[in-house]
Amino acid sequence: MIDFNALFKITYGLYIVCSGDKSKGNGFISNTVFQVSSEPAKFAASCNKDNLTCEMIEKSGNFSVSVLHKDTNAELIGRFGFRSGKDFDKMESLNVTFGETGVPIVRDASIACLEFKVVDQLDVGTHILFIGELVSAELIEKDLEPMTYAFYREVKKGLAPRNAPTYIDKEKLQEKTAVKEKSIYKCAACGHIYDSNEEEIAFEDLPGDWTCPVCGVEKEDFIKV
Amino acid sequence: MIDFNALFKITYGLYIVCSGDKSKGNGFISNTVFQVSSEPAKFAASCNKDNLTCEMIEKSGNFSVSVLHKDTNAELIGRFGFRSGKDFDKMESLNVTFGETGVPIVRDASIACLEFKVVDQLDVGTHILFIGELVSAELIEKDLEPMTYAFYREVKKGLAPRNAPTYIDKEKLQEKTAVKEKSIYKCAACGHIYDSNEEEIAFEDLPGDWTCPVCGVEKEDFIKV
Repeated sequence: MIDFNALFKITYGLYIVCSGDKSKGNGFISNTVFQVSSEPAKFAASCNKDNLTCEMIEKSGNFSVSVLHKDTNAELIGRFGFRSGKDFDKMESLNVTFGETGVPIVRDASIACLEFKVVDQLDVGTHILFIGELVSAELIEKDLEPMTYAFYREVKKGLAPRNAPTYIDKEKLQEKTAVKEKSIYKCAACGHIYDSNEEEIAFEDLPGDWTCPVCGVEKEDFIKV
Repeated sequence: MIDFNALFKITYGLYIVCSGDKSKGNGFISNTVFQVSSEPAKFAASCNKDNLTCEMIEKSGNFSVSVLHKDTNAELIGRFGFRSGKDFDKMESLNVTFGETGVPIVRDASIACLEFKVVDQLDVGTHILFIGELVSAELIEKDLEPMTYAFYREVKKGLAPRNAPTYIDKEKLQEKTAVKEKSIYKCAACGHIYDSNEEEIAFEDLPGDWTCPVCGVEKEDFIKV
């Protein structure tokens, strides 16, 4: 028997994983970055096959990891977690440097930055698990705490993007809360509330290309509350 | 350039990973258990090749994960993290059940228990990364918080076992603290202090088979303080 609520007790951090080069970079919000061996230090990062960054990691053989601090704003998480880089330059106007391998590294809201060279990869179904050997590591903010996924979910009220390995379809949760049929929606990235009772147009009638006025994520990333 | 202090900003939980069957089970303390794909739910667990549990996972094709709560006592962590199952039955006197696959599952101090069937594995050098498909998941304590590795290190003053993927040789840390040559040692598992000035025998002169009087770990797992 599988109670998917048990999976919420697994601890994760929150990171921006980037790849590409100086001409074009892209990244996504990840909670699955972890060290898998010590000598030499190797890390694993799980990446959805549909992500543009996945293609870029396969092509360049490099990726970077920016460890986000606890008070990272919703706009940055929304930009990397809920928008696609296929039609939008996620790096625009951010503080980005380039590592020894040439990979872009996002420094906004980051307390540590790591850079990896891919040494192996494993197809795990919906995702590819990239194994990277540590090339460089920089501690930017010694005294700031990292954002944990639990903090993001419980305090920041954030949700997993659909491409995350930890995304769980609400239908699967055994303890379903009865959802009333009110037309109030919440942005999964920044928490912005769209209350149809207070707007001229009901949420359902908004055009498909409507985006969150606060953080810019797409309409389909709003959740009924 | 690699500053190993940056690696401490990566977030982990703390788990007991077990394998074996009803006749013989074994387990180790792990901080690297992560979901890597969503449909079906697959997890990765990194296991040092020197661990007895590693052999058992390869042989049985199954493993279990017990998510430890925040106030797990040092004795349980010492038993699974700092002692070898090669000469000691780690399961003795514990609350152990057996999963659908027959794998032992430790329930002591556990807030959730997961059970996996190995579907793939990857050699990452010192460790093997096992990919397990979720067979069963049980939420035991809905309201208790999981132990995070940061909490274990900072509040509980625990150290990484040498076989952990996140073990870092202190020589590698760039910000070395000047260690005075006093003969005071601390148990890496439970924090017990051995102060040679207050004992009849200096720590260095204790026999090789001497173990921690509190939690039973070996002499070599004491750290000079």
